[in-house]
Amino acid sequence: MLHPSYAQGRVRPNRGIPTRVLHQMSDQPAPAAPTETPKPKRQRRRSRKAGLPPGTLVHIGEPRVGPVTLQFMLFNAEGCLEPSLANLDELPGLLNDNQICWVNVSGIHDLSLIERLGALFQLHPLVQEDIVNTEQRPKGEDYGTYGFIVVKNLSYAVQDRHLLTEQISFVFGQGFVLTFQENGNDPFVAVRDRLRTGRGRLRTQRADYLVYALLDAIVDNYFGVLEGIGEVTERVEEQLLSDPKPEILKELYSLRRCALFVRRAVWPLREVIGTLQRGQSQMITEFTRTYLADLYDHTIQLIDAIETYRDIIAGMLELYLSSASNRMTSVMKVLTVITTIFMPLSFIAGVYGMNFDYMPELKSPLGYPITLAVMVLIAGGMLWFFHRKQWL
Amino acid sequence: MLHPSYAQGRVRPNRGIPTRVLHQMSDQPAPAAPTETPKPKRQRRRSRKAGLPPGTLVHIGEPRVGPVTLQFMLFNAEGCLEPSLANLDELPGLLNDNQICWVNVSGIHDLSLIERLGALFQLHPLVQEDIVNTEQRPKGEDYGTYGFIVVKNLSYAVQDRHLLTEQISFVFGQGFVLTFQENGNDPFVAVRDRLRTGRGRLRTQRADYLVYALLDAIVDNYFGVLEGIGEVTERVEEQLLSDPKPEILKELYSLRRCALFVRRAVWPLREVIGTLQRGQSQMITEFTRTYLADLYDHTIQLIDAIETYRDIIAGMLELYLSSASNRMTSVMKVLTVITTIFMPLSFIAGVYGMNFDYMPELKSPLGYPITLAVMVLIAGGMLWFFHRKQWL
Amino acid sequence: MLHPSYAQGRVRPNRGIPTRVLHQMSDQPAPAAPTETPKPKRQRRRSRKAGLPPGTLVHIGEPRVGPVTLQFMLFNAEGCLEPSLANLDELPGLLNDNQICWVNVSGIHDLSLIERLGALFQLHPLVQEDIVNTEQRPKGEDYGTYGFIVVKNLSYAVQDRHLLTEQISFVFGQGFVLTFQENGNDPFVAVRDRLRTGRGRLRTQRADYLVYALLDAIVDNYFGVLEGIGEVTERVEEQLLSDPKPEILKELYSLRRCALFVRRAVWPLREVIGTLQRGQSQMITEFTRTYLADLYDHTIQLIDAIETYRDIIAGMLELYLSSASNRMTSVMKVLTVITTIFMPLSFIAGVYGMNFDYMPELKSPLGYPITLAVMVLIAGGMLWFFHRKQWL
Amino acid sequence: MLHPSYAQGRVRPNRGIPTRVLHQMSDQPAPAAPTETPKPKRQRRRSRKAGLPPGTLVHIGEPRVGPVTLQFMLFNAEGCLEPSLANLDELPGLLNDNQICWVNVSGIHDLSLIERLGALFQLHPLVQEDIVNTEQRPKGEDYGTYGFIVVKNLSYAVQDRHLLTEQISFVFGQGFVLTFQENGNDPFVAVRDRLRTGRGRLRTQRADYLVYALLDAIVDNYFGVLEGIGEVTERVEEQLLSDPKPEILKELYSLRRCALFVRRAVWPLREVIGTLQRGQSQMITEFTRTYLADLYDHTIQLIDAIETYRDIIAGMLELYLSSASNRMTSVMKVLTVITTIFMPLSFIAGVYGMNFDYMPELKSPLGYPITLAVMVLIAGGMLWFFHRKQWL
Amino acid sequence: MLHPSYAQGRVRPNRGIPTRVLHQMSDQPAPAAPTETPKPKRQRRRSRKAGLPPGTLVHIGEPRVGPVTLQFMLFNAEGCLEPSLANLDELPGLLNDNQICWVNVSGIHDLSLIERLGALFQLHPLVQEDIVNTEQRPKGEDYGTYGFIVVKNLSYAVQDRHLLTEQISFVFGQGFVLTFQENGNDPFVAVRDRLRTGRGRLRTQRADYLVYALLDAIVDNYFGVLEGIGEVTERVEEQLLSDPKPEILKELYSLRRCALFVRRAVWPLREVIGTLQRGQSQMITEFTRTYLADLYDHTIQLIDAIETYRDIIAGMLELYLSSASNRMTSVMKVLTVITTIFMPLSFIAGVYGMNFDYMPELKSPLGYPITLAVMVLIAGGMLWFFHRKQWL
Repeated sequence: MLHPSYAQGRVRPNRGIPTRVLHQMSDQPAPAAPTETPKPKRQRRRSRKAGLPPGTLVHIGEPRVGPVTLQFMLFNAEGCLEPSLANLDELPGLLNDNQICWVNVSGIHDLSLIERLGALFQLHPLVQEDIVNTEQRPKGEDYGTYGFIVVKNLSYAVQDRHLLTEQISFVFGQGFVLTFQENGNDPFVAVRDRLRTGRGRLRTQRADYLVYALLDAIVDNYFGVLEGIGEVTERVEEQLLSDPKPEILKELYSLRRCALFVRRAVWPLREVIGTLQRGQSQMITEFTRTYLADLYDHTIQLIDAIETYRDIIAGMLELYLSSASNRMTSVMKVLTVITTIFMPLSFIAGVYGMNFDYMPELKSPLGYPITLAVMVLIAGGMLWFFHRKQWL
Repeated sequence: MLHPSYAQGRVRPNRGIPTRVLHQMSDQPAPAAPTETPKPKRQRRRSRKAGLPPGTLVHIGEPRVGPVTLQFMLFNAEGCLEPSLANLDELPGLLNDNQICWVNVSGIHDLSLIERLGALFQLHPLVQEDIVNTEQRPKGEDYGTYGFIVVKNLSYAVQDRHLLTEQISFVFGQGFVLTFQENGNDPFVAVRDRLRTGRGRLRTQRADYLVYALLDAIVDNYFGVLEGIGEVTERVEEQLLSDPKPEILKELYSLRRCALFVRRAVWPLREVIGTLQRGQSQMITEFTRTYLADLYDHTIQLIDAIETYRDIIAGMLELYLSSASNRMTSVMKVLTVITTIFMPLSFIAGVYGMNFDYMPELKSPLGYPITLAVMVLIAGGMLWFFHRKQWL
Repeated sequence: MLHPSYAQGRVRPNRGIPTRVLHQMSDQPAPAAPTETPKPKRQRRRSRKAGLPPGTLVHIGEPRVGPVTLQFMLFNAEGCLEPSLANLDELPGLLNDNQICWVNVSGIHDLSLIERLGALFQLHPLVQEDIVNTEQRPKGEDYGTYGFIVVKNLSYAVQDRHLLTEQISFVFGQGFVLTFQENGNDPFVAVRDRLRTGRGRLRTQRADYLVYALLDAIVDNYFGVLEGIGEVTERVEEQLLSDPKPEILKELYSLRRCALFVRRAVWPLREVIGTLQRGQSQMITEFTRTYLADLYDHTIQLIDAIETYRDIIAGMLELYLSSASNRMTSVMKVLTVITTIFMPLSFIAGVYGMNFDYMPELKSPLGYPITLAVMVLIAGGMLWFFHRKQWL
Repeated sequence: MLHPSYAQGRVRPNRGIPTRVLHQMSDQPAPAAPTETPKPKRQRRRSRKAGLPPGTLVHIGEPRVGPVTLQFMLFNAEGCLEPSLANLDELPGLLNDNQICWVNVSGIHDLSLIERLGALFQLHPLVQEDIVNTEQRPKGEDYGTYGFIVVKNLSYAVQDRHLLTEQISFVFGQGFVLTFQENGNDPFVAVRDRLRTGRGRLRTQRADYLVYALLDAIVDNYFGVLEGIGEVTERVEEQLLSDPKPEILKELYSLRRCALFVRRAVWPLREVIGTLQRGQSQMITEFTRTYLADLYDHTIQLIDAIETYRDIIAGMLELYLSSASNRMTSVMKVLTVITTIFMPLSFIAGVYGMNFDYMPELKSPLGYPITLAVMVLIAGGMLWFFHRKQWL
Repeated sequence: MLHPSYAQGRVRPNRGIPTRVLHQMSDQPAPAAPTETPKPKRQRRRSRKAGLPPGTLVHIGEPRVGPVTLQFMLFNAEGCLEPSLANLDELPGLLNDNQICWVNVSGIHDLSLIERLGALFQLHPLVQEDIVNTEQRPKGEDYGTYGFIVVKNLSYAVQDRHLLTEQISFVFGQGFVLTFQENGNDPFVAVRDRLRTGRGRLRTQRADYLVYALLDAIVDNYFGVLEGIGEVTERVEEQLLSDPKPEILKELYSLRRCALFVRRAVWPLREVIGTLQRGQSQMITEFTRTYLADLYDHTIQLIDAIETYRDIIAGMLELYLSSASNRMTSVMKVLTVITTIFMPLSFIAGVYGMNFDYMPELKSPLGYPITLAVMVLIAGGMLWFFHRKQWL
């Protein structure tokens, strides 16, 4: 139930990630869904790489067996094509200076595919290694002729409080953009629609603007996650202020962990976008930089919000603990009041229950009523005392 | 009940924001007050923007339906005019080099109006987008021919402990200042008066000084908010030191949250003003920079005060918890004292309540008085013991 | 009872600040002491300034009505004069290149006086505004022909745990030093003596060295405050380690707040002195800079000490809470031991107090002694058990 | 049980470190295993050095008596030799420009050996001193003709929650690499295999790349340690959420300490690798720098993960304490409910157990059943009350 | 009992500091030991200086009356002399370019001696003032012709948990080193031995290397202090894990304070050595800088260790508090179990102790055994219930 490295997929175990198969490479039937193949957890261990030469491709992450799909989009100001390639070797033919080619790979566990793409686009072995290792920390690197970006795509299921993490890598250069996702949720649907319909400036700009648009789509997802966390936090707070129950503790713990994971993804994301925007790279135009600056502002807003949530959650935990201690005290007060009232009364009853031969009170006809009256007086006095001490 | 993003309007739900309608654009009757139209909360979600091209105007924030009003002020050293325009197209005619034109927009949910103003003043699409998105973090940007500033205007209702947040955007350039507020409290009344009466240097300076004066008015509001928080803190502290009740917990929690939100608005405000003051912008004169430096000092003072309040509130929470634990212990002591005194006594009474045939004490005429005497001795001994242990 | 802004005068309300009237300007009888005029608290509010043009003089701070006194000292290496001026207009006649003129103003609530001085020395309106606003954060500013410094003078009354704060402003330039204090404790008595007697280098140096000497006097006061806090802390610690009582909590809370306020005054003071020492200002000679460096070291020492006190106070609070929890446990143990011993005994007594016709034990002559023996055995066993569990 | 300095070997005492004897220098029988020679702890004290001139070799660390072994590897693109030297004096003969010589020393307690190697490679006395002092903090230094690196090699035994620390020093220059390890776990087995088989680029590159590969092997070990900690954390969390027992406290404490130690090793490691990568040293080629940048990313990932673990562990401790307090309250509720129900009932029984002559209720045939009915009513009422208060 | 400024001498009051009188200046009998002269504490107050001109010598620190001793060492590569001077005026005769003169002053309360030395070596008045003020924060200053360093020498008595602090000042220039210590422990014994015997490089190097060697001796002392703290921490931890008693709290509090004080001495020490090493001063040779870099590493190691101790101590406190709360819960469980079992039983006994005339059960011969059986059943049921709830 614990996945502090990024590859965990989600913070709380759930029922399998819906895989959106878009364009299947081959006509083979889709393999069984991930949930049916509970490969040993050991599989996703980073330590599998220990001892291997650097640059060796090893898929690190939740074992996935869904189909690996590739999706090609070619566009320029005039139009947008979505060819279906029978073979990767046709790809170089698609690349030319008049259009931008976006290759989206869904599923990164097919290492040979990654290697072939790496060879086609002359990617550094370490880049290929990073693409298939889903435990990367978000980062951006400039390899001269192409840029490499790794970010996390998050989504949050309010219902069952699941945070799903997925790694998305970008490689972009002159006229091409490659994106690599694990086959989970596809955050790029809206961008694809804008490319097809030609809405916005997407088709008239260069590859860097497409990268911006894709990053923007991911950042927009983060806002959705924060809203989800906010909604849950709101509900928990309402419950906390009206009727705090012990279950709130686990809710708060889960919220806290979610916030921790989002924070862990957002902070380096800010760095990545800041580097892109302020960097020296020739691949980023001035036009795009303005938009990246805006995106950078969004990440700061995200950080601001997540830090606020963390503060609020901490405050709620404190409030819960304090009210728990208050409830405890009120329970103790009830106990003390009851004990303090009945102990003396029972004692008196006990005294006159003694069997001494010589107890003059017992003989008196007034003994019983006087005793009862004394008991009532004692009880009343106690109650008055507790009332004045505000225990009742 | 939770709004960690800025658009929340207020920290605790309340009865509707008093809208100060100043100069209504048309003669139509004012629409229903905000409180009467509880549009679904979902409306204010940031995620509505997901998937849209950047620069698309989407009003994000609490849904508002109050009338959108525009207010024009033209002034120079000689005088001040407040024309009522029938149509926005007359606006360009008002702009000339001899006077400064201040356009104040109250209500930002009329997107077409924002777009028309954006076209008139040639604002970047991202600026327009930011104006209508009330979840902005305070920021300042220099777009060459004009500057863009987003800040938060706060007000605090001591009575019901509400913190109201409102976003105010500034666009200013050669000879003009645009301000955009949500239609809540208008913080600019005093500045308008100074313009009308010609008090101070306001009419003799350029647009940047007006921006300074408006920012100064907002910062002065912050001091009011801090005084409000201070007043509440003071009251809570008095109650805490004299008679700490469990309700204090919720008060402290609410104070803490208010302080959190003020802090979240003040820190970036400091940055904004610091950037304005030290920036390279041609639009800020040396004269105004001196005043901005003073304003910057004020924001540091605000930060200093809010951090101190946070420390004080944390200290009070600690004190409350500690005294709660003290009270608990004193409750337990009462319980323990009562139990410890009466248990042995009741036991003795129980012993002589046994029905054994052969119990010589029962026959003795001294049995009863001696038993009572022993009981008094035991009780006295216990009391002395507890007194020595300082439990009484 | 809460004044997180500086103007509060003292952290805990007390009986009036001893005003040291030095040279009274006029022969009018001194007005009533501050304590007799409990002007509404609202008076000291910073928000009174809201809406006023910048540079408008408004006295912000505790309302004071004591006499405003001015004190003039003229000195050079040869000697020292203390003229008594009938009229402020004579002041310019005193300023010449051969001597240094120190004007000390005690009491800053006479706004017209401040304005006249401001006009005489050509002070920027914002400087005048800052002088009369006692809620300033310590700061230093260079206005070219003169320097402006605002600091806090602290004193601590160990007896009643009061921290008194007072704002002192300095304006200094070629041949003159102006100091403005609220009419509270005068920290400059020793400096005046040194000027009169000619001890040290004070009379042979320029104005900047006088400023250093005055700042040094204030910093020396801080050491006194820290020693006072240290003394109280020491006493509280002794009590905490020997006999922790609930009252300690309030003591700790008060100490914590004092430390918070001292800290809030010392940190910006360090900046002020550091800026003076390392700044480019022509008004500070190399000779004085060496001494300012020493003073800077003193402020670092102060910060070091105050942070240590805060750590120590936090540690004491923790220790108190932990021992409180220990005491609670020991109370509970007593309760549990008593209950556990007497409950079974009382039960046995209760059994043989039942009135069944057929209870063979009751008939037996050994019934009573055996029952008593069993009771003693049970009690002994319990005691042995608790002893082994180290509850006794 | 406490070793905050690095020499501690492990965080929790265990049964002796498996020593992997690779190539024994001499034919002498291996001395007794470390566990059999519990030399006084005092031996490993850093203070033994006090008073000695700097550069004096003193072995500081856990006393070790295992055999000191040396292992030589000579390689270039063509092949790889592993000569067995009878005498250290043969070593200079192996060094030439055509091949790279890697000398691995396992066991650093043979000071004369270190001194002879130091003389051969002209190492600065301080470097020799640092090699034999296992309490070094990870660091990297450039001595012009050679570089010196000290890092920690960690391994974690999930079974008994032991963290083993071992110091490894590197000296590398033109054509040679010296590594010094305490004779514990050898992390270099895989690298040796790659050298022998010629897999990867190891044999074709210069000495700096070998250093990179060895550091990479150590960093890979850290990932293993983190996975171990993660596994334990996961188990503890599961237990915490299902059935929190007091033993969890010690588990959490131990985890926290492990995380503390890993963190203490990783932070300076990051600096070391960052300095290597960005440094001016001529010994590091551009080619290797790319790989070092990748390694640097890995250390950041490690830091990220360890900080997350610390946050998670802190959260678990909080959760444990909160649920402990909840359990306490529920225990108290049971006590209160039982007491509150039976105290009044027993009192009533006590009243009718009194022996007054005149108690009319006792005579009535309905007295007993009515009394029982009243008791049932009281008990029922109490239960209903507690049910409504949600105590049951 | 509280001395957060450095002059406190020790953290916990103890029986007087052993004074090591080395070379007595005069033949007068040594005055009474410090413990016999409990001068009023007020003596050591920093505030005594308030009002005095800067540069006035005032001894601030624990009042000391031990003899002030001077010790002269003259050395060069050839040999080492330890002359005994009858009069300070002979000192200038000893200074020449061929040898280095080290003057060690033990005891700084003889102000006239300090002044005479100050005149001889032309020390700045502020330097003289700093030498006799033992509340200095460690610092290093370059006065052109000489350097001035103030550090703290610590020692820790494990037995009575005392941390002793002592201030040591260095003045060093061309051919001379002055050291000033309070007359407590002398940390320089080993250095003196090395000078006498000529071991190491000490006699062949210049004055800066001697300063390094002396600082190294002090830093070595810090390692001893840390080992002492580590030893105590270890013992406390063992006790905490096996048998946590309330006394541990005070131990932890004392450890925490010690760590706080060491930390307060080490952090500025690091700065001092770092400044020496990287500074521009002509007095430090390249040769010495290498050694200073090593010393700098040691201070970082010290900081690393002290921060780790602080973390560990905080963790132990948390563990203690958590186990205290666990013990509390277990006490409460015992109470609850006993109460819950015996309350119903006593109630039943009470019922059949009632004296109603008509109670059919009392007449039945089976009444008594059935009642006993029911009691056993109830008790058994309760025990089974508590067993299932894991309270037993």
